[in-house]
Amino acid sequence: MEVSRIRALRGPNLWSKHTAIEAVVTCVGPEADLDQIPEFVTRLRARFPDVKPLRPFGHKEPISVAHALEAVGLGLQAAAGCPVAFGRTIATPEPGVYQIVFQYTEEPVGRLAMDLAEALCLAALSDEPFDIKLALSKLRELDEDVRLGPSTGSIVDAALARGVPYRRLTEGSLVQFGWGSKQRRIQAAETSNTSAIAEAIAQDKDLTKMLLEAAGVPVPTGFVVSDEERAWEIANRIGLPVVVKPRDGNQGKGVAVNIETRDQLAKAFGVASEISRDVIVEQYIPGHDFRMLVIGNKLIAAARRDPPNVIGDGVHTIAQLVEQVNQDPLRGDGHATALTKIRFDDIAIATLANQGLTSQSVPEKGSRILLRNNANLSTGGSATDVTDEVHPELAARIVTAAQMVGLDIAGVDLVAETVAKPMEEQRAGIVEINAAPGLRMHLSPSFGKARPVGEAIVSTMFSDGDNARIPVVAVTGTNGKTTTVRLTAHLLRTSGKRTGMTNSDGVYIEQRCIDTGDCSGPRSARNVLMHPDVDAAVLETARGGILREGLAFDQCDVAIVTNIGIGDHLGMNFINTTDGIALVKRVIVQNVAPHGSAVLNAADPMVVGMTDACPGSVTFFSHDKLLPALNTHRAQGKRVVFVDGEHIVCSEAGKEHRIPLKAIPLTRNGTITFQTENAMASIAAAWALGLDWSIIEMGLATFVNDAQTAPGRFNVFDYRGATVIADYGHNPDAILALIQAIETIPANKRMVVISGAGDRRDEDIIQQTEILGQAFDQAILYQDQCQRGREDGEVLALLQLGLKNATRTKEIIEIRGEFIAIDTALAKMQPGHLCLILVDQVQEALDHLAKRIAEA
Amino acid sequence: MEVSRIRALRGPNLWSKHTAIEAVVTCVGPEADLDQIPEFVTRLRARFPDVKPLRPFGHKEPISVAHALEAVGLGLQAAAGCPVAFGRTIATPEPGVYQIVFQYTEEPVGRLAMDLAEALCLAALSDEPFDIKLALSKLRELDEDVRLGPSTGSIVDAALARGVPYRRLTEGSLVQFGWGSKQRRIQAAETSNTSAIAEAIAQDKDLTKMLLEAAGVPVPTGFVVSDEERAWEIANRIGLPVVVKPRDGNQGKGVAVNIETRDQLAKAFGVASEISRDVIVEQYIPGHDFRMLVIGNKLIAAARRDPPNVIGDGVHTIAQLVEQVNQDPLRGDGHATALTKIRFDDIAIATLANQGLTSQSVPEKGSRILLRNNANLSTGGSATDVTDEVHPELAARIVTAAQMVGLDIAGVDLVAETVAKPMEEQRAGIVEINAAPGLRMHLSPSFGKARPVGEAIVSTMFSDGDNARIPVVAVTGTNGKTTTVRLTAHLLRTSGKRTGMTNSDGVYIEQRCIDTGDCSGPRSARNVLMHPDVDAAVLETARGGILREGLAFDQCDVAIVTNIGIGDHLGMNFINTTDGIALVKRVIVQNVAPHGSAVLNAADPMVVGMTDACPGSVTFFSHDKLLPALNTHRAQGKRVVFVDGEHIVCSEAGKEHRIPLKAIPLTRNGTITFQTENAMASIAAAWALGLDWSIIEMGLATFVNDAQTAPGRFNVFDYRGATVIADYGHNPDAILALIQAIETIPANKRMVVISGAGDRRDEDIIQQTEILGQAFDQAILYQDQCQRGREDGEVLALLQLGLKNATRTKEIIEIRGEFIAIDTALAKMQPGHLCLILVDQVQEALDHLAKRIAEA
Repeated sequence: MEVSRIRALRGPNLWSKHTAIEAVVTCVGPEADLDQIPEFVTRLRARFPDVKPLRPFGHKEPISVAHALEAVGLGLQAAAGCPVAFGRTIATPEPGVYQIVFQYTEEPVGRLAMDLAEALCLAALSDEPFDIKLALSKLRELDEDVRLGPSTGSIVDAALARGVPYRRLTEGSLVQFGWGSKQRRIQAAETSNTSAIAEAIAQDKDLTKMLLEAAGVPVPTGFVVSDEERAWEIANRIGLPVVVKPRDGNQGKGVAVNIETRDQLAKAFGVASEISRDVIVEQYIPGHDFRMLVIGNKLIAAARRDPPNVIGDGVHTIAQLVEQVNQDPLRGDGHATALTKIRFDDIAIATLANQGLTSQSVPEKGSRILLRNNANLSTGGSATDVTDEVHPELAARIVTAAQMVGLDIAGVDLVAETVAKPMEEQRAGIVEINAAPGLRMHLSPSFGKARPVGEAIVSTMFSDGDNARIPVVAVTGTNGKTTTVRLTAHLLRTSGKRTGMTNSDGVYIEQRCIDTGDCSGPRSARNVLMHPDVDAAVLETARGGILREGLAFDQCDVAIVTNIGIGDHLGMNFINTTDGIALVKRVIVQNVAPHGSAVLNAADPMVVGMTDACPGSVTFFSHDKLLPALNTHRAQGKRVVFVDGEHIVCSEAGKEHRIPLKAIPLTRNGTITFQTENAMASIAAAWALGLDWSIIEMGLATFVNDAQTAPGRFNVFDYRGATVIADYGHNPDAILALIQAIETIPANKRMVVISGAGDRRDEDIIQQTEILGQAFDQAILYQDQCQRGREDGEVLALLQLGLKNATRTKEIIEIRGEFIAIDTALAKMQPGHLCLILVDQVQEALDHLAKRIAEA
Repeated sequence: MEVSRIRALRGPNLWSKHTAIEAVVTCVGPEADLDQIPEFVTRLRARFPDVKPLRPFGHKEPISVAHALEAVGLGLQAAAGCPVAFGRTIATPEPGVYQIVFQYTEEPVGRLAMDLAEALCLAALSDEPFDIKLALSKLRELDEDVRLGPSTGSIVDAALARGVPYRRLTEGSLVQFGWGSKQRRIQAAETSNTSAIAEAIAQDKDLTKMLLEAAGVPVPTGFVVSDEERAWEIANRIGLPVVVKPRDGNQGKGVAVNIETRDQLAKAFGVASEISRDVIVEQYIPGHDFRMLVIGNKLIAAARRDPPNVIGDGVHTIAQLVEQVNQDPLRGDGHATALTKIRFDDIAIATLANQGLTSQSVPEKGSRILLRNNANLSTGGSATDVTDEVHPELAARIVTAAQMVGLDIAGVDLVAETVAKPMEEQRAGIVEINAAPGLRMHLSPSFGKARPVGEAIVSTMFSDGDNARIPVVAVTGTNGKTTTVRLTAHLLRTSGKRTGMTNSDGVYIEQRCIDTGDCSGPRSARNVLMHPDVDAAVLETARGGILREGLAFDQCDVAIVTNIGIGDHLGMNFINTTDGIALVKRVIVQNVAPHGSAVLNAADPMVVGMTDACPGSVTFFSHDKLLPALNTHRAQGKRVVFVDGEHIVCSEAGKEHRIPLKAIPLTRNGTITFQTENAMASIAAAWALGLDWSIIEMGLATFVNDAQTAPGRFNVFDYRGATVIADYGHNPDAILALIQAIETIPANKRMVVISGAGDRRDEDIIQQTEILGQAFDQAILYQDQCQRGREDGEVLALLQLGLKNATRTKEIIEIRGEFIAIDTALAKMQPGHLCLILVDQVQEALDHLAKRIAEA
């Protein structure tokens, strides 16, 4: 067994909507049929009993080690506590070669599961031992390490429940919610709206107190001191007992409460002054510690926090009592449980000493012995939800406190007898305000009800019902993608939306190019969705990226499929048929939002075949209004777009909107069929997005398609009375469409300049010149700069081969170098001639052409 | 000479709008007439020649040491660089006793100037030496220490220029702009809108780079490393020279550029790894360092930052060249100048060593020798403004960089050949983004134009023209203040504004009491203006606070003066006449905004006398429509409010709006004159604030005035068929108004319960019972709980004295204790009787009364 090409599919993909690990597995000999090696399955189950049955339901063919590998990869993750369920093994056309795919929730965990599954299968094959316990603990540890913590996790879950897309920006807790201009960020319990100044104020306890006092919120009397002498003086003036804490600091660090003696004060001052030069001495308010969680302008949760303690029984020592308490199965070791074991360490011993006790003291029956002065869950304290008990007047004070400091999310520490009475009717005071408060005690309190704090945080960021999405249009197909992307983006821009766009030329934010090269993959799409200046996105979504990584988005509003061409990059990822390509391109249709639409070319049966895969509605478009697929759809009252005489007609439920072709310069009065098709696809997309017809028509009228704005997309030049057309079209379908368009332009001689891209299949290169040979009088074949692994002359030979039976092409010239080919063609031009130049190095070639034309 | 009662007047006050130090100065013998001790002035001038002439222009009376003290207090501050100009010395009615007042810009500096001025005058009196140089340097140092830094200062100046009020919240750079719900805060170049998450992102250089790359912003190639070995490996992979810097960190700390050797790298790595565990090694882009300042979504300023350097002349050593450069008078020592002396320290020597030079090297003529690798102004670097040169495409990239990180104010560090070309057309990259950037290099660049960065920051916080103020109504006067405040606040609340209110009962935010006790001073007013839930403020503004501290606001929209009563706390602050009181109360009228209004009682000539002091318009109100003052005002088309039969009439320019008195329950169909007056004042204020008449009328109709909502304000109870009225009125005017109101209520016997506040003047206490003796059949005199320094029985005796010539009061009872007095009165009540109880401990007395009434 050999595992190769392991990929992480990070978005919806060919196999499912889940993130998944995909790998190619080559099985040798009996490995391809486990019936031949039954001992393998026995050994596998001996090492990992939890593995699911290997034969999928209804699967008749032999089961391979690849199937086992998939089942183990999934099973290990499930056993380690990851919520994963999807897995599949697919036989490729090559015998013994399989693709396996299994879901992950965290990519590193999925990858580790792959490695461990491989090791386990190899161990089972060779009957070697495998330490399953170690493997699972490694997985569990990694998962705990990389997955979001409970606070951030609860917010992400709430966002997902509302349909808000998210993306982790770091390995830590920084998360982006939403897309483009609607995005917000969180980092644990901080949001993009959390003010840095407010956090600084919350850190300064003395300033916080001043602000709270100004707003009439009760706070304990206290003063800032910088030496111990003065601290003792103040303590006596306020009245003992007191609290000693650092002026700057939070989360209870360095805070000592109930200080009664000079000695205690000295120790407490020492600890506090290590954290902050200024130390606060303040009135000790006896009572419970409460943590009040304010989100936005509401009190969302309240918890009473009790320090770890034991209750004496008159028989056992304190050490024994602690041991008893720690045997409670509710108490865990880590952060995962609602209660943690009481930590019986130096601090606990010191806390006992302050009460005149040791670990060997036997406390009286019923007496409560504190083991720490603070109630942190991690050292054995407990949190009891008291949200429902909070008096509205008290809640109002707590909210005011958070607002005075300026925090959108605040953990307000209250000391009070009870939260059920107004603060003014008891001894109560706010002692600290914390930015980025921990949420664990409210999400899984030791006692009482969990509170939906994640939902509350999501609601502060996004107004009711808003899912922070921007309109996303995904475009795929063999021909016309780039023009359709550009025109659709132009229509959206015309409607006032700042539009981001990816295509095979680059990434554009509004009119600005922020990246160049082929940007039709998921990385570029993610960059657009992350850009803060983007109100809508139009994303060319090429096959390569879908296969390599999956989609960059969980769903789109519109999916446009222009066509499934013949001979377009076949051979990738075991896909050797146009049917296979259709399956890949269908992925964008499968991930249309329920309220969204697929815009499908009714003239392409394979595209029409995607209809049922669309969770939303479907709009068919076609030049030919008589196509049965289109007609049936139209008869059902569904949306169709077609050409009728001199108009593009948009029809739905008997209602029609007609747009004159002459008002769409791109189509040259409808003479360029493929541009008319691109226009129809874009119109259908804009219609699906709810744009006004007036906006759509204005956009169509103002769309410019020249070498400047759309390099290599049917750029027409005049050269000494001859017509020169430059285009990037490099597959048989594109060339057929170009010929169709060019035939409408009169010319007394037709010439073509062409190379063949080295990475295409031989037959596809040959097919190009086979087509061209029927339409052009003269052909200039050139070898392009980058031969992509081909021998010198190899591509030229293939091109010549295609022209062998040419009906029209009489003259054939071979050139090395694109510029020389262009110059050669131009030198031959006479008024009335026409030349199609199929450019390869698009920008360089166009620049060269422009220079020659300027010189003419 | 003796100086006593030094006060800081922190707002507009009796003397001026300026913040000022006020003190009482007692001069003994010749000190009150410097003509008698001419040597004093000589000695004074000898010690402090800059003191201004002591005799104010036109001043004929003798000049005292107090005059000198005032002149010196002001002069010392001016000499220390503080922009102060206002000073005054006023003789009090007591011979030899003066009040002096002089302006300050910083309170601690003003107070120190007071101390130093006293010392200087004493030295001049006793002919002792005085170290004026030391005194001035102390003042200068303190001023530098306490005044706002240049960055914060520039923002505050811009806010003031726009009319935005501000308040410093700490001794540091934390400043509140605006009031109530419109407030924002800044801390240096951070605003309330500065996101804490964005700051965290900017701190993480690697994450920042990832975000910038995603948005297509050029950044130098680089990698994070954690050991030196790997750092060197990466450096070689990227290509030397490289930059080494800590992953977390900012403001150029620990950054080493142009690292070419292993040795340099080792050193740089050591420095960087002390700041951050992870260190970044990245491509070194040769070129200039630029600091680009983005505020909101605009590039506001750009500066080229050059490290300190000298140019060789082939003759002098580097040490000598540095000395020459440092002689430039433009180069100062501190932060105050645009250039600072080049620091020739160990770092400079090390920088030279890296170039193979020492301080004694003699560089070639024209060669540029760097003395540091960074361009910080404080170590001798320079900043040249290049804002006007920035290419718009480059500016767009810089703005995108700030927005990707999420900062509203960002200092973007760019390395480039020039800012005049797009980044893509040169080797250029963004190397760091800084939150809270220093503004000094843009405010006072070493070379080039200063940029209005403060204005830009204020504009990001407040939309165009918004001055962040909320409507403020100030109310003063002897009687009716509290009801007027409450009713005006109620009208504002009715209009939908969350209204904060201060009065002599407490501070209220909406209906919620956040402070109790006499809250008519500036501290309470400031608290209201600082509360984030306040859209409008109505502030009772008592005399005490104005005298003690000045106003809490620089201007108000409406100033209401109800009346100047007789005998109301005379004797404070050398004010022994009602004329004097009028001057104090006039302060709120003097500080009406130009677009604002004073609402003045036309029936009180002293209040009418304030008309000319008002910078805004004036509305007169009076029960009597025939009053000449009111009539003249009305005839001029100005606003007046008066009673006409059964209506309150609001008249302006011949147009009238009439409100039926029966629709204002407070006035009891207009029978309670003083409440009608309060209603008129509130109506005039609401009118001035532009409230709709329908809102005003709804507010008047719904205003409730009972013991619950307005304790001690004409609270009427029924007790066993008798009418009991409780009121807090404790001055002759209030008592006259009460009697007038009570006379409209039929009763067959009238009783009054009264004490006299111990802190009033004898004659005022006597006057109360003189008035009551004409209106009541029976009087119960009691001694209140707090005798405020009076002997037992002293107040009772004064009350008896007032009743000596009573025409109506036949029965007089003396009681000790308020509750007993109330119980005694109630016991005597018969159906048809009426009893006025002048409560002292308002809440306690009303609670007691309520209990008795409930029992009945």
